Amino acid sequence: MLFSVQVEVSLRDGVADPQGATIERSLPHLGFDGVRGVRVGKSIRFDLESADEAAARAEVEDLCSRFLTNPVIETAEISLTAVDAAGSAS
Amino acid sequence: MLFSVQVEVSLRDGVADPQGATIERSLPHLGFDGVRGVRVGKSIRFDLESADEAAARAEVEDLCSRFLTNPVIETAEISLTAVDAAGSAS
Repeated sequence: MLFSVQVEVSLRDGVADPQGATIERSLPHLGFDGVRGVRVGKSIRFDLESADEAAARAEVEDLCSRFLTNPVIETAEISLTAVDAAGSAS
Repeated sequence: MLFSVQVEVSLRDGVADPQGATIERSLPHLGFDGVRGVRVGKSIRFDLESADEAAARAEVEDLCSRFLTNPVIETAEISLTAVDAAGSAS
């Protein structure tokens, strides 16, 4: 089965996010008020061929903890969607 | 009203993604087969104070097209959730 996978990698609460802080500090000067708590993370999307959803999820979790994230400072949120042979979401 | 906003910034189809290509090329050597079409984007989360959902969405769309993305090569997908005063999603 083919799965469409999205992994959102974000910094853990309490870990400094200089990129987010820079965006937040700049926005009022650019005319956007009322924006608070900006946090910037990564969004990784890919297709995965796997036997079933449980196997796919286990493989993605392993992939995340070993390569896509630094588990000391980052967390990953995984979304899996089964895709049928024609390529549309089922 | 306070809104919790997530913006996913991804490269448009057809735009080269060297970071995604590097991940895809490396994974088979690291023991992960069956991963295809890796694309790496950004995920930006923040809280926004706005009068109502329509105003919040308009402000976020403006913010995305002017500062958070390069519209020539990137697209943004916006998710808005209203948050009540106690801080939980409503």
